[in-house]
Amino acid sequence: MKVLSVDPGYDRLGLAVIEKNKKETLLYSECYQTRNDLPFPERLGLIGNRVRELISSYQPDAIAVEDLFFSKNTKTALKVSESRGVVIFQAIDADIPVYEYTPNQIKVAVTGYGKASKIDVYTMVSRLIDLGKGKKLDDEIDAIAIGLTFFALYKNTEHELGV
Amino acid sequence: MKVLSVDPGYDRLGLAVIEKNKKETLLYSECYQTRNDLPFPERLGLIGNRVRELISSYQPDAIAVEDLFFSKNTKTALKVSESRGVVIFQAIDADIPVYEYTPNQIKVAVTGYGKASKIDVYTMVSRLIDLGKGKKLDDEIDAIAIGLTFFALYKNTEHELGV
Repeated sequence: MKVLSVDPGYDRLGLAVIEKNKKETLLYSECYQTRNDLPFPERLGLIGNRVRELISSYQPDAIAVEDLFFSKNTKTALKVSESRGVVIFQAIDADIPVYEYTPNQIKVAVTGYGKASKIDVYTMVSRLIDLGKGKKLDDEIDAIAIGLTFFALYKNTEHELGV
Repeated sequence: MKVLSVDPGYDRLGLAVIEKNKKETLLYSECYQTRNDLPFPERLGLIGNRVRELISSYQPDAIAVEDLFFSKNTKTALKVSESRGVVIFQAIDADIPVYEYTPNQIKVAVTGYGKASKIDVYTMVSRLIDLGKGKKLDDEIDAIAIGLTFFALYKNTEHELGV
């Protein structure tokens, strides 16, 4: 089973592809950036195309996206939501189910603690999955954490269903 | 010149196609609704597909979309923004330029008054363009107003440029 996980944003979009057989393997991750001197609609176009390319390359079985939390900065939150809508549209357009998790669900799934810091998340992610060589950017780590959350909660759902 | 104008939303999406030769003609309008018992990603998928269909049918030269204003209800605003992102993505994906207008710009362009009521807008829209038979829904009227704003401001830009 393969999941494409996305930490939505317009400046930086965290993307990860994780496959699980017996354990999770990181197939791909990146922090996709769009230039801030581009008109915003162009940036949304680039984001949608990047997600569509990854769907086409990796053929994931599910797409996991972080839910937007309440934000003090409404303007930023609205722009992130536009990016989020574009990402979700690519999933539906490719007939792939979408799973959404709140920041709290992600922190609990990865670290066991809802108030975990960025460093706690990084530390636990690097214990749970082989990140390979090179330092990962925050947005990549967030995307990987979202993918790990998918497998943690998906497994639980299977257990609950008695699968 | 033809414009597809969109009043973004997830429950009801106002859509209009207006062509201008000497004067504006309304080619099409609708209030596109998505069922509220569908999962939200599915609704975004339907919205994107509907906009893509209209682009394909009418081949507009521009897409005009209302800018989201600050909202007291953040949750609703975030969902409208997701829908907005999906709409804008369709435009960029079809290589059509996007024009965005604030509610204030639209009211001023259509009625000359930034604090115009819904009824003022309806009245002026029905004077500016032949709405044909049958009552139009609010979201349709809003979409038509956005299209009329596009032509009002586009014309001004031409004058400014000395075209």
